[in-house]
Amino acid sequence: MTSKTHIVAISGSLRKSSYNTAAINAAAQLLPENCSLELLDIAKLPLYNQELDGELTPEAVLTLTQKVANADAILFSTPEYNYSVPGVLKNAIDWLSRQQPQPFSGKPAAIMSASMSVLGGARAQYHLRQIMIYLDVHFINKPEVMIASAHNKFNQQGELDDQLSRDFIQQLMAALVTWHNQLNK
Amino acid sequence: MTSKTHIVAISGSLRKSSYNTAAINAAAQLLPENCSLELLDIAKLPLYNQELDGELTPEAVLTLTQKVANADAILFSTPEYNYSVPGVLKNAIDWLSRQQPQPFSGKPAAIMSASMSVLGGARAQYHLRQIMIYLDVHFINKPEVMIASAHNKFNQQGELDDQLSRDFIQQLMAALVTWHNQLNK
Amino acid sequence: MTSKTHIVAISGSLRKSSYNTAAINAAAQLLPENCSLELLDIAKLPLYNQELDGELTPEAVLTLTQKVANADAILFSTPEYNYSVPGVLKNAIDWLSRQQPQPFSGKPAAIMSASMSVLGGARAQYHLRQIMIYLDVHFINKPEVMIASAHNKFNQQGELDDQLSRDFIQQLMAALVTWHNQLNK
Amino acid sequence: MTSKTHIVAISGSLRKSSYNTAAINAAAQLLPENCSLELLDIAKLPLYNQELDGELTPEAVLTLTQKVANADAILFSTPEYNYSVPGVLKNAIDWLSRQQPQPFSGKPAAIMSASMSVLGGARAQYHLRQIMIYLDVHFINKPEVMIASAHNKFNQQGELDDQLSRDFIQQLMAALVTWHNQLNK
Repeated sequence: MTSKTHIVAISGSLRKSSYNTAAINAAAQLLPENCSLELLDIAKLPLYNQELDGELTPEAVLTLTQKVANADAILFSTPEYNYSVPGVLKNAIDWLSRQQPQPFSGKPAAIMSASMSVLGGARAQYHLRQIMIYLDVHFINKPEVMIASAHNKFNQQGELDDQLSRDFIQQLMAALVTWHNQLNK
Repeated sequence: MTSKTHIVAISGSLRKSSYNTAAINAAAQLLPENCSLELLDIAKLPLYNQELDGELTPEAVLTLTQKVANADAILFSTPEYNYSVPGVLKNAIDWLSRQQPQPFSGKPAAIMSASMSVLGGARAQYHLRQIMIYLDVHFINKPEVMIASAHNKFNQQGELDDQLSRDFIQQLMAALVTWHNQLNK
Repeated sequence: MTSKTHIVAISGSLRKSSYNTAAINAAAQLLPENCSLELLDIAKLPLYNQELDGELTPEAVLTLTQKVANADAILFSTPEYNYSVPGVLKNAIDWLSRQQPQPFSGKPAAIMSASMSVLGGARAQYHLRQIMIYLDVHFINKPEVMIASAHNKFNQQGELDDQLSRDFIQQLMAALVTWHNQLNK
Repeated sequence: MTSKTHIVAISGSLRKSSYNTAAINAAAQLLPENCSLELLDIAKLPLYNQELDGELTPEAVLTLTQKVANADAILFSTPEYNYSVPGVLKNAIDWLSRQQPQPFSGKPAAIMSASMSVLGGARAQYHLRQIMIYLDVHFINKPEVMIASAHNKFNQQGELDDQLSRDFIQQLMAALVTWHNQLNK
């Protein structure tokens, strides 16, 4: 009997009608059996400042750290800003990386990106992979889900209604859970 | 007769006793003749949110944009957090990249990094170079100033007192001004 | 009166009907006035071995070095193999980087890529940009020419007949010559 | 009872007294129990040309492919040439990536680098990591073994006699075998 797999998801965009947050909502509907997914909120973190490490660490950071630490796997969905990950996503990672125990350590993870550009966020994905080497995250390699021309793939209600993209996300979630099981047998 | 060259500098660290801010202060003392340098403040920016583009753009973003737009050249000095640029630096770049006219466009720039690691911030520098391709910044290639083991190179007053590092910074500033002149003859 | 601008071009693919070599042939037809373009041959170089530096350096390396040294600007056109530049292109760069004087130093350059993938070679382009920092090459930032789904854009004779791609290449060559002139006023 | 773990190693340098080949020889002495290591030879491969795919594929490529396919894990040891992996290493990877079944697929792997520079080959390591995403290799994240100032760490016989570097290599090999076991329970 396998236990339930709990995934936490971080969106790289703060706007309410974010394509990437919507892609995470789609992922929540496309999980394998016996999985749960929780979208984390990184909008309330202040800008990271090393002077706040230790006792001054904001409550929002501690809460987020605990949620990542308790998760079985991580899902990132991020736009690409200026050929890399958004500052707001990196800021959240920078905060969490300073907590002890470092919550990402050893976790399996997956990336997807939605972007209006034809490259679909590729450049952000490879930067994120390099970032997470230091934090000892184990990414799956495939599939690489890059939702290009995102403005054509979500409907007026902000729901992903492009079937090909939904299929890729379903494959991504299945691969992430398989990878988690492989690492934790 | 050449006119004065005005450089604006952005530090990737917000803490008061930041090595990178201190390295910028050292650069201000090591400028070629007929140059000025102003340290910009990115600590007061909120987290970037696309919903704030346009009329809701914070005053601090507009001020910063104007200062970059008016500058002849840009100096970045940044720590490396998690194998990339700090979120706070990327957040500032993300804000400025949305302003019209985009203030970095066509500017000459230089990078230095101070870090406690033996690599001295190298990984952050190459990510920053890729980020600024999109913003059409023209970086100098050499020298590459990476101040490794930074905790051994600044004194108790937070001043850079490692002569080799000071020499490299002086060369960097000279190369930046030469590059600016080459691009603007 | 401006003198003629001579561009040398290196293709990252050795096969006769290479899309990237064909893209260079297209570029040769789309040059600004008063320019010439020569396609260099990197197929005859052996695998780089440091033991062959100095007197044992193959004649083909010396010839190639001289052609790059005499050029005003460099054009790379490369496929993406395994998310980076082809080994054969990197091998040519490794050979030339060891010659004195190093022939790429200070030259303006441009990149394009043709690839069957939807990303059009993007990952190879950013690796190439990092590689050429060390060799002190000054790339133009825009336009970034990435010919995706290349198999649909060249005709049976191997000629690029996609008008949009031809327009981008024409813009790339114009931007390269403008950049060369800006650097050498 | 665990079966024997067989590791194949690829050196990114072809010269006989290569530091990286010597580092692989050191690794062979520092293996955990019940492991074997074979150094592969990439010096005899021609430059990759897609026209040689299929029936014309050189015998040396087929032999190399078989050895990788039969291995439990891969060790790369590479110098950094021009801020990336050597062309000769990438050429070998390009050849193997075209074989069916693709021999690297799903394998655990580790990287080390020896370099005369102070960065110890870091830039090559991150490029190699990106390259191997496409080939579905699973790298360990830690330790990252970068042997800087390599000319001071090998003796006249070309043996690694720097104890700290030897300790890191021993940890690397232990971590690789642990990672292999975790993936294949």
